[in-house]
Amino acid sequence: MENLDEETDKKTTILSDLLVQGSYEELTKIILEMPTVEVCEFLNQQTEEKAFKVLELFPKEQQGTFLSGMDIESQLKLFRILEKPVFAQLFSQMASDARADFYQRLEKKEQGELLPFLQKKIRENVISLSSYPPDTAGGIMSTDFATIYIDMTAEEAMAKIREDAPSKKMIYYIYVVDHLQRMLGIVTIKELIMANPKNKIEDTLQEFFVYSEVDDDRESVALKIEKYSLFAIPVLNPFKQLVGIVNHDDAIEILKAEQTEDMEKFMGIVPSEIGENYLTTSSFQHFKKRVFWIVSLAAIGMLSGIIIHQYQNVLEQYIILAIYMPMMTATGGNSGSQSATLVIRALSLGEISSQDWLKILFKETKISFMISLCVAAVIYAKIYFLSFSATTRNFDLSLIALTISISLALQVMTAALLGAGLPLIVKKFGGDPAVAASPAITTAVDITGLLIYFTIATLLLNI
Amino acid sequence: MENLDEETDKKTTILSDLLVQGSYEELTKIILEMPTVEVCEFLNQQTEEKAFKVLELFPKEQQGTFLSGMDIESQLKLFRILEKPVFAQLFSQMASDARADFYQRLEKKEQGELLPFLQKKIRENVISLSSYPPDTAGGIMSTDFATIYIDMTAEEAMAKIREDAPSKKMIYYIYVVDHLQRMLGIVTIKELIMANPKNKIEDTLQEFFVYSEVDDDRESVALKIEKYSLFAIPVLNPFKQLVGIVNHDDAIEILKAEQTEDMEKFMGIVPSEIGENYLTTSSFQHFKKRVFWIVSLAAIGMLSGIIIHQYQNVLEQYIILAIYMPMMTATGGNSGSQSATLVIRALSLGEISSQDWLKILFKETKISFMISLCVAAVIYAKIYFLSFSATTRNFDLSLIALTISISLALQVMTAALLGAGLPLIVKKFGGDPAVAASPAITTAVDITGLLIYFTIATLLLNI
Repeated sequence: MENLDEETDKKTTILSDLLVQGSYEELTKIILEMPTVEVCEFLNQQTEEKAFKVLELFPKEQQGTFLSGMDIESQLKLFRILEKPVFAQLFSQMASDARADFYQRLEKKEQGELLPFLQKKIRENVISLSSYPPDTAGGIMSTDFATIYIDMTAEEAMAKIREDAPSKKMIYYIYVVDHLQRMLGIVTIKELIMANPKNKIEDTLQEFFVYSEVDDDRESVALKIEKYSLFAIPVLNPFKQLVGIVNHDDAIEILKAEQTEDMEKFMGIVPSEIGENYLTTSSFQHFKKRVFWIVSLAAIGMLSGIIIHQYQNVLEQYIILAIYMPMMTATGGNSGSQSATLVIRALSLGEISSQDWLKILFKETKISFMISLCVAAVIYAKIYFLSFSATTRNFDLSLIALTISISLALQVMTAALLGAGLPLIVKKFGGDPAVAASPAITTAVDITGLLIYFTIATLLLNI
Repeated sequence: MENLDEETDKKTTILSDLLVQGSYEELTKIILEMPTVEVCEFLNQQTEEKAFKVLELFPKEQQGTFLSGMDIESQLKLFRILEKPVFAQLFSQMASDARADFYQRLEKKEQGELLPFLQKKIRENVISLSSYPPDTAGGIMSTDFATIYIDMTAEEAMAKIREDAPSKKMIYYIYVVDHLQRMLGIVTIKELIMANPKNKIEDTLQEFFVYSEVDDDRESVALKIEKYSLFAIPVLNPFKQLVGIVNHDDAIEILKAEQTEDMEKFMGIVPSEIGENYLTTSSFQHFKKRVFWIVSLAAIGMLSGIIIHQYQNVLEQYIILAIYMPMMTATGGNSGSQSATLVIRALSLGEISSQDWLKILFKETKISFMISLCVAAVIYAKIYFLSFSATTRNFDLSLIALTISISLALQVMTAALLGAGLPLIVKKFGGDPAVAASPAITTAVDITGLLIYFTIATLLLNI
């Protein structure tokens, strides 16, 4: 990524210089050689006046493509400085999904300013796409797809595609519909090219195809695109009519956002929405997303105080035990978080399911047993050979070392099983395993760890 | 995902029944209606004998497609039961990248058994693709792409594509090369269809295109596919010859694997390789990946013991302070992990860079100040009004409550700044910010937390 961005930065500097100098011809030439994404990044960085100056150098259709790829914030700035009929022309050339996203971000009043200048067909398209909730298939789909009718020949189909495929349409999959727009199947452009021109579409039609419904959750749409390695997935309404498609690049974006959400949940942060950005989100917003877990876990963490209070006499007799308390709880937390991370990840990749719980717990028992042995041996040696001399008053150091290393071993194993078990239980009851978050596990393990520690101490030190 | 998998499970049961009953005709019919991925999942679940029986029902080319999508383990089983000339035929029909991956998994001896039965062209292709390191563009690319020559007309180009495009080739992008296979540009199939048949390819050629080099890291290849929303990216050798393409579905797989790696690093687990699976990885392998951090952090955690040892007299005087010690360290850990998660994620999404460090730290200061106030107020109230009566011997409870809540507030802020700062520092020095992992931050914060706690206690309680 680093390198990609550096290259882009270099080009951006050159373009900015040309823009300042007014060398529009040179500027146009370089922009035409650049990938669209980079042009859009460059436009995002300009003032709205300059961005429009650059856009004007290109044909209308190209302007629409560039505008579609720009940030919504930059699009809004352009909307605000341009005469509404001028903006409406640009807007009409945008990709249908980008257009609907932008339209939804406008105030009611602004929407009213724009609508009168749109052609009826585009106005209807915008309003219809904007009516779907943003986290559904309908909310992310585009209407830029190519259709043919089932009773056409391959030759006629090809002619229709040539005729109504302006540059923004995806024509890798050609969707076959009846005259009521109900979807009957798919033909890939390749099959169409390879087919005998006189053959009926019926003969090459793939009748069975993967699709989403218009109110499907956007994550399930992305997962289908991924699972079936699709370039795009058709979206059908309840009447089985083809109303849109979702492209594979949207799937990548959704899967990334869902993953961020998982990581955030796992760390006890209220998940961010698509398009939210660390720096532009206000501190107060951040605060609201983080405070709940911190305060609740601190309150729950006081429970560990009750345990210590219970064993206060042990602590008073053997103040050395207090010295190893933080290490005890922290090691449990680390062990539990490791297991939880692996199990949650494996669940979300579909490598395991709740039904495998016995196998998973058995595996974690074996793994944590081996880790326990190592960590107990190291800590025993450390205490026995390198202990803080001042603390060895009149008690048997080897017994203290034994107490601590046995407790630690049990703590590591309990924590691993809790870390693996909690997400499985949450999943079993239909929840999102990521809420069995690392902070929750750490807090739980603090409590079990102290219980183990003081129980073992009481037994071994005969208190 | 759940739903997708359930549907697949149902189909699988039906297919298995048909297979047992020997109803091959019905079986064939259903399989032809299923997406390839699902057929491959079904074949993976069968014994190698049954899987071959199913494969045999289809034309050779289709067999190759199914075999390509199967697990390498299942492919290996088939290899072992089949006569080598029979397997060689199947193998020749596989997708070139799947073929090379499989070939690399064979023992030297087994490779020798297979090679003699391959056609020269395929033999050379397999050996050449297998020669690239698996984590480079060369190691993941396929050679199933379509090329045309620059001096052709659109009509001639279309004829060449029709002629040499067997079903496995991706023809969305047509790669334009000279007669030495050097890449000159790209034409999309759509441009070719829309072009005047008599026009030269030169006229529609996109001369400037995004590509990868054969020894580029596979992650950078995936990031390019994502950034530029490509269906596939061409891979060039040092002579600028087109040697392969990497498809968008490989990019999704790589990005997912890299993300798992980040999460694992973040939790102090040695990252897994692509294709490693939680359940099939042996416990000892898991152990090796996890033990290092647990033991090292436990050892470092002993440092917190030194601090407690230092303040042993404070603890002996005010044993109540021990009661709140675990809550103090745990809350710091949670606060630090939250900040670290957000910063690492924002870094990896490119929302922030190391240069923004001042803005980020300022933001974290504001956020954690607000969190501090809340958590300190709650804990003060809890201690003052609901304290364990037995511990209130002869000291001023309000002073204890003040000590603990001030320390806690400082601890939350320090932890947030450490959590945000450490990944930035690691990144600044060219490291992977994910190694400033949650366990590392928790351990660091334990130490700073105890220092803060005992310093404030000494000051306020006049010890």
